[in-house]
Amino acid sequence: MAVVPTLSGSRRVRRTPYSDRVEACGVKAYTVYNHMLLATVFRSLDEDYQHLCENVQIWDVSCERQVEIIGPDAAKLVQLMTCRDLSKAKYGQCFYAPLVDENGGMVNDPIILKLGEDRFWLSIADSDVLLWAKGLASGRGLDVKVFEPEVFPLAVQGPMAEEVMARVFGSEVRDIKFFRFAELFFQNHGLIIARSGWSRQGGFEIYLDNPELALDLWDLIWETGKGFNIFAGCPNAIERVEGGLLSYGNDMSSENTPYECGLGKYVNLDADIDFVGREALAVSREQGLSRKICNIRFDVNLDTTVLEAWNVYSVDGEKIGYVSSGCNSKKFGGFIAIAMLDHKFWTSGTFVMVQTPRGDLKGRVTNFPFD
Amino acid sequence: MAVVPTLSGSRRVRRTPYSDRVEACGVKAYTVYNHMLLATVFRSLDEDYQHLCENVQIWDVSCERQVEIIGPDAAKLVQLMTCRDLSKAKYGQCFYAPLVDENGGMVNDPIILKLGEDRFWLSIADSDVLLWAKGLASGRGLDVKVFEPEVFPLAVQGPMAEEVMARVFGSEVRDIKFFRFAELFFQNHGLIIARSGWSRQGGFEIYLDNPELALDLWDLIWETGKGFNIFAGCPNAIERVEGGLLSYGNDMSSENTPYECGLGKYVNLDADIDFVGREALAVSREQGLSRKICNIRFDVNLDTTVLEAWNVYSVDGEKIGYVSSGCNSKKFGGFIAIAMLDHKFWTSGTFVMVQTPRGDLKGRVTNFPFD
Repeated sequence: MAVVPTLSGSRRVRRTPYSDRVEACGVKAYTVYNHMLLATVFRSLDEDYQHLCENVQIWDVSCERQVEIIGPDAAKLVQLMTCRDLSKAKYGQCFYAPLVDENGGMVNDPIILKLGEDRFWLSIADSDVLLWAKGLASGRGLDVKVFEPEVFPLAVQGPMAEEVMARVFGSEVRDIKFFRFAELFFQNHGLIIARSGWSRQGGFEIYLDNPELALDLWDLIWETGKGFNIFAGCPNAIERVEGGLLSYGNDMSSENTPYECGLGKYVNLDADIDFVGREALAVSREQGLSRKICNIRFDVNLDTTVLEAWNVYSVDGEKIGYVSSGCNSKKFGGFIAIAMLDHKFWTSGTFVMVQTPRGDLKGRVTNFPFD
Repeated sequence: MAVVPTLSGSRRVRRTPYSDRVEACGVKAYTVYNHMLLATVFRSLDEDYQHLCENVQIWDVSCERQVEIIGPDAAKLVQLMTCRDLSKAKYGQCFYAPLVDENGGMVNDPIILKLGEDRFWLSIADSDVLLWAKGLASGRGLDVKVFEPEVFPLAVQGPMAEEVMARVFGSEVRDIKFFRFAELFFQNHGLIIARSGWSRQGGFEIYLDNPELALDLWDLIWETGKGFNIFAGCPNAIERVEGGLLSYGNDMSSENTPYECGLGKYVNLDADIDFVGREALAVSREQGLSRKICNIRFDVNLDTTVLEAWNVYSVDGEKIGYVSSGCNSKKFGGFIAIAMLDHKFWTSGTFVMVQTPRGDLKGRVTNFPFD
């Protein structure tokens, strides 16, 4: 494939309040996520990765759309949507929560923010959770309002993130614990700020709910970050695979249960909670796992990436799963992959054959994430 | 903006069984539609347009995903989802049908194919109707199965489409009326073929339900089409704006009722049917329209396209709506646009000011589509 197609713009593929800055920083490639632009590369995947691990980056992650659920039945609806027990959730907490359908299949894997007793945000991965929530609410006749608020998250990620954030928002930022949020102020406007983000380098997510402040906010972080070598970034394909961060749509889909995705600890069947898919997941637990997400390591780099599932075979030629994501990793000395593998083949050290676009390649299974 | 970002590939942005052929034909740009690749340009928008209007094109429209609804309550669920009366629907018919939410807002505008008394396909625009249907079914406890089948539509469009299709599938193809479908055979495999497609140039959509036949099917149509100057194509931004084909996500969203989108004839409030949003649409009908989709014509071309809504003002400076799509049109001698305009300003001939990225520009309102 010599062709490198560009991405056509249209209103349907939504720009964000930060897009002008992202483009001024020379974004080289986009993807589309929740019908919205998401940058994927600025300088190069490798340079972006190195910079993220050593400095601080500002990320336009507006595409992490919020689904707001508010009203007397809000807590009931949110619990209906996830197998994770939220009965003890408190204001100020963020919950990574698999959403499952009636078959126990993954619908999405948002961060849920409890903003009040009757008010939640689901900060979603790439599927229209809004329609799922509205369908359930309408079908069950629940007393809630479900909508997509005008919230455009901006992430500040990397080892120097806290230093920059403390200079922008004050030292209170330092007191925010991991997966907790607080309300801090920017131009006298309260903003939800969480210690979270889709990297393993530490950082924050700012849930900006007034697009008119977007460029001022970006610019202030940028100016403040100059002393810390700030640059524009985005979720990095190398960093996230190395770090074992799963991507909905890539590594998991409605074909997979949370158990298969290694998210069994968030399936709280022993809690006295009502959620869609409870019965199906109880059956899954009873039956045990037939496949799960593992990693595969290779000794060599590959000059390609995973655009479609790559078949995985046992050394005897039996089809035993597929690779869903991967990247070349300096840290691990070769191409590393996330794969869904059948029972019997997921023991660390097992050798497998992978059908890559560059021919069949021998790899070694490791536990998830890389051991 | 000098930057023309490319589209990053990943499994989440799904390729199709025809993608290799699309790329071999030199696709220049893609968009993402229902989490899947959709070509937007091959040679240039103008050349693609001209070729489509005079010859025949083969389009990979796999991204028109199907939502299959099957089971004893299938007809009930499908009717719940749309304000169009489907009570007299028969096998072999295609229905353009607005789907609406509890507020009467547009969720999608699929073509609905009735495949049997208890079986339907919703051939959808760009939103996860699957989750909406599953949410409603789960919430109401309906006895249906809702899923996305492995169906990858291929369109053959243009004035010579019937000639090519008759040579591939036999002359029975000629008997298929507009918005009707029949089952015809390819390699002894039955395929649903409809006279439909997202252009005004005539043609067919083939609902291939076996991806292993995809390349054979593409290649046979290609070989057969050579005598008719066939080339690869895709929904064309010029042809569809000139032709008044609305695009969900561009020209309409959940913020709009079908009335505002000019789809009032599909709101069958007088029929004895139960659908979500019935009450809200009854109120809308009672209150009358405050805004609706119109067209605006300009005397000049613009060297830009509509990436975000462009504000529209009255000649007195009052904000009266926005432009949602547009293109340069040789046929109409300048830039033409689709716009949502307030009452009082939608009379054909009204002059308005439009805030374009190239400065303010005077335009003239015309009825929809262009009069």
